[in-house]
Amino acid sequence: MEAARPDATAPLALDTSPERYHHWRLSVAGDVATLTMKVDGDHPFRSGYELKLNSYDLAVDIELADAISRVRFEHPEVRAVVFAADLDRVFCSGANIYMLGQSTHAFKVNFCKFTNETRLYLEDASARSGIKFLAACKGTTAGGGYELALACDEILLVDDGNSAVSFPETPLLAVLPGTGGLTRLVDKRKVRRDRADVFCTVAEGIKGKRAKDWGLVDAVVARSKWDETVAARAKALAASTAEVPHGPAVTLDPLAPTITAGKLAYRHVTVAIDRAARTAELTIRGPVEPPPASAAAGGADQWSLRAFRELDDALLRLRFDAPEVGVIVIRTAGDRALVLAHDAALAADPSGLAREIRLLQRRVLKRLDNTARSLFAVADAAESCFAGVLLETALAADRFYMLIDGERIAVATSVANGGVNPMGSGLSRLEARFHGEPAQVPAILARGADGPIASEDAERLGLATIALDDIDFADELRIAIEERASLSPDALTGMEASLRFVGPETLETKIFGRLSAWQNWIFTRANSTGEHGALTLYGRPERPSFQWSRT
Amino acid sequence: MEAARPDATAPLALDTSPERYHHWRLSVAGDVATLTMKVDGDHPFRSGYELKLNSYDLAVDIELADAISRVRFEHPEVRAVVFAADLDRVFCSGANIYMLGQSTHAFKVNFCKFTNETRLYLEDASARSGIKFLAACKGTTAGGGYELALACDEILLVDDGNSAVSFPETPLLAVLPGTGGLTRLVDKRKVRRDRADVFCTVAEGIKGKRAKDWGLVDAVVARSKWDETVAARAKALAASTAEVPHGPAVTLDPLAPTITAGKLAYRHVTVAIDRAARTAELTIRGPVEPPPASAAAGGADQWSLRAFRELDDALLRLRFDAPEVGVIVIRTAGDRALVLAHDAALAADPSGLAREIRLLQRRVLKRLDNTARSLFAVADAAESCFAGVLLETALAADRFYMLIDGERIAVATSVANGGVNPMGSGLSRLEARFHGEPAQVPAILARGADGPIASEDAERLGLATIALDDIDFADELRIAIEERASLSPDALTGMEASLRFVGPETLETKIFGRLSAWQNWIFTRANSTGEHGALTLYGRPERPSFQWSRT
Repeated sequence: MEAARPDATAPLALDTSPERYHHWRLSVAGDVATLTMKVDGDHPFRSGYELKLNSYDLAVDIELADAISRVRFEHPEVRAVVFAADLDRVFCSGANIYMLGQSTHAFKVNFCKFTNETRLYLEDASARSGIKFLAACKGTTAGGGYELALACDEILLVDDGNSAVSFPETPLLAVLPGTGGLTRLVDKRKVRRDRADVFCTVAEGIKGKRAKDWGLVDAVVARSKWDETVAARAKALAASTAEVPHGPAVTLDPLAPTITAGKLAYRHVTVAIDRAARTAELTIRGPVEPPPASAAAGGADQWSLRAFRELDDALLRLRFDAPEVGVIVIRTAGDRALVLAHDAALAADPSGLAREIRLLQRRVLKRLDNTARSLFAVADAAESCFAGVLLETALAADRFYMLIDGERIAVATSVANGGVNPMGSGLSRLEARFHGEPAQVPAILARGADGPIASEDAERLGLATIALDDIDFADELRIAIEERASLSPDALTGMEASLRFVGPETLETKIFGRLSAWQNWIFTRANSTGEHGALTLYGRPERPSFQWSRT
Repeated sequence: MEAARPDATAPLALDTSPERYHHWRLSVAGDVATLTMKVDGDHPFRSGYELKLNSYDLAVDIELADAISRVRFEHPEVRAVVFAADLDRVFCSGANIYMLGQSTHAFKVNFCKFTNETRLYLEDASARSGIKFLAACKGTTAGGGYELALACDEILLVDDGNSAVSFPETPLLAVLPGTGGLTRLVDKRKVRRDRADVFCTVAEGIKGKRAKDWGLVDAVVARSKWDETVAARAKALAASTAEVPHGPAVTLDPLAPTITAGKLAYRHVTVAIDRAARTAELTIRGPVEPPPASAAAGGADQWSLRAFRELDDALLRLRFDAPEVGVIVIRTAGDRALVLAHDAALAADPSGLAREIRLLQRRVLKRLDNTARSLFAVADAAESCFAGVLLETALAADRFYMLIDGERIAVATSVANGGVNPMGSGLSRLEARFHGEPAQVPAILARGADGPIASEDAERLGLATIALDDIDFADELRIAIEERASLSPDALTGMEASLRFVGPETLETKIFGRLSAWQNWIFTRANSTGEHGALTLYGRPERPSFQWSRT
């Protein structure tokens, strides 16, 4: 697959594992894991900048995402994770500025989206998996470093007269903290808004007692008591979740997709990219065997886990390596009944592993919601199997086209459609779809319990956008895809973001919907990324010059 | 005041009245008013484009905002307003494309913000003043025309085989419907999201039965039954609100500010602009007399009405005519006790007029919240009177600086701080400020009921950001203002938008926070406003060419 990343010479290096990390060290001792950051300047995501002072780039964040996933699946004994750093006076200085300054707009936006997703995964693990996170900030905690801390359950800051938490983005770089920081400051930690205003404009940040008084950190701790306090707080956090069932462990094997020009091939997922047409055909194949006796028995190979890990991987590669693809056409292939059987088995399994697989499916479906491409789901063959958790991909799509072929082409529902896979808004995809007709949700689930819903019925019930017979179907679909691929990508991104996320707002939708939109805008402004912009000139002797119009 | 609008040769023409309208005709018959749009191409806001087919620009929208205000204050007999058009085949074709194409980014954004505020005023009048709105769409209803209809309580579309509602912005112009349309489509009218997706990409729109079936309009009506149906529906809407107290009428006299270089002077409000420093000093003077015996007795001259009309006017002039002003320093001057007396009298008055004055204050305070400038409130003289409804301006500010001078400088609370002036989020400004310490809200209101709260106490209670004595105050404030005025205006806008609006989200915050941010971004992208962008090339023979990267 031809890559559109700057400097990209190889497929995105998503497959990693702790023994291959360059930037983090994962160590597990009893129920506490420690993730120690020591960014290795010799292994940046690409050349052209130096990763000093524990600043990070995509390579660092890919390892972080992997580590969180390993803790969830491979270390079920862990109940608390401590973020620490191996530098003396620096915890983390945030996203690398030179990397940002050299990146394309598309890369910056996708980098921020990925880091945002990873931060939200910490909060997801805390809320649902009984794994608490402690930021042990023994040194400068700036920008994205503080945003990582904000995503944790508890923040400790060393009281050494020097170490501060800070958001220097606005005063120094003319951009926003891009990884949820502003939202978490006032909406999660509920820092008073005028104090947050002061904090966000003081480049050197706030330290010591004031950081505690303002609620920016949970405690400030003397150097002499640092190690024992961190250990004690980690133990206390671990003890607070002892009742949540965990395990058994499963080792996440490499996905090892076959990546060739125009194609990504996994065991259950295939992506065919037509760069000239600006489209990608994403096919998810259903399971070919009944579910394992238990999640534990199924291991890493079970379809519910493996297929969604593959889908996740494919979505990231499409985001980073195929930015010109405007329309993703989603198809499914397989046996509807087997998908439903896997959903049912997974839902009934009380183990921590089954829960982790369900939560992984839920996160991958959210990554699909947050993928800024037009999504058209298509059921046009008898082997189509938009059933249960795979039906969620059709409900995530902007449109769902179904060919009418008697009873042969149909969708089916399962427990996976009943609320266990909410969108960022907290609504299930059925609830979001029928925001104006809430009675349709139980009606469809009841109808689905009686058996497959063929295309005409699916259209009548509002599950399919359009159902057509084979005289019209192919032309209608072809024209719709061509038209969609011809529209402005920016307008489509804003339109889809507005239409997909109806109803209530949450920290999560605020981060992706509101904060990211402001950040997108600010990244395009001359004051940050223009020739004389602050991000462009960072580290150089020239001072930025601003266009002063306020909008 | 030197104007930064394109082509501006005179102060913004905000003062108007029905007999001077060029673009609308306001007629009242019993409890139904009709606002008929017939845009006069000879009276655009500025030269350079033609206002064809009932397309609108700022001049048209200033008249609309004035008309809504006149109905509320001058025509208390009105319970329903019909929007109609005086063209045969066109209701309204939306914001004028050529005007948008020729406008600066700052003007486009401020134009959209003003039109958004006016649309929200329709919904405010419907929800709180017992005035219902009917969009009588007898002809093409496109873009901003349909957005105006969406802000109404009911939409009728003529069934003539031709007239459609449409959002051609994305397919034709590579921008979003900029006046709340996407949000209202899925969150207010709750159109199914995949249908909304289809609707927003079909430039010619949707007409007839399908428009009704999809929930885009409330009824489609044959030409032969049009007039009688419109009249009947208007009567029914008027009857539905007959119990809401209205009146007595008061005539809104011209504000007639004195506008000179660097200064706006009203009776109660003064704005001094220092363009070199990029600051404005906004001073609101409190009442000098006790409140009138009743709102009716006070008429248009009463302080509670006049001062807030003036503040509203001043904010609009700052937005449009002083875009380089980054910091607005808000001061008050007068007698705290008199402000509290006016608040109390207004709150106790059961008349419709008193309610309208309260609602006007509330809307003006929201306009302050939504003004994209740094707001610093300053109490540094004994005459300072941040009391009651004026305290709301300090609570709206990003920071509040108070000089310590014994008991002489103080704030005071009234009923106006207790929830009757919510922000767009639905929270009062005290609730938003103390989002993390909700018990502070009743504590402060109880403390305020005992008398004024001097600076040191105000800081301790969290009302003041910083209280300092006169050794440090002046330097601290001067440096804070200079620093703020030196930061990137774009980053500040995004930062303030994220910190000001904590807590719940509503249709209103979604429109200003999410939709506007996306629109801001899209307006800056080459695909819309670049040399080969769709907005730039609209109406020319060249086809736009797009950069295809999806972000």
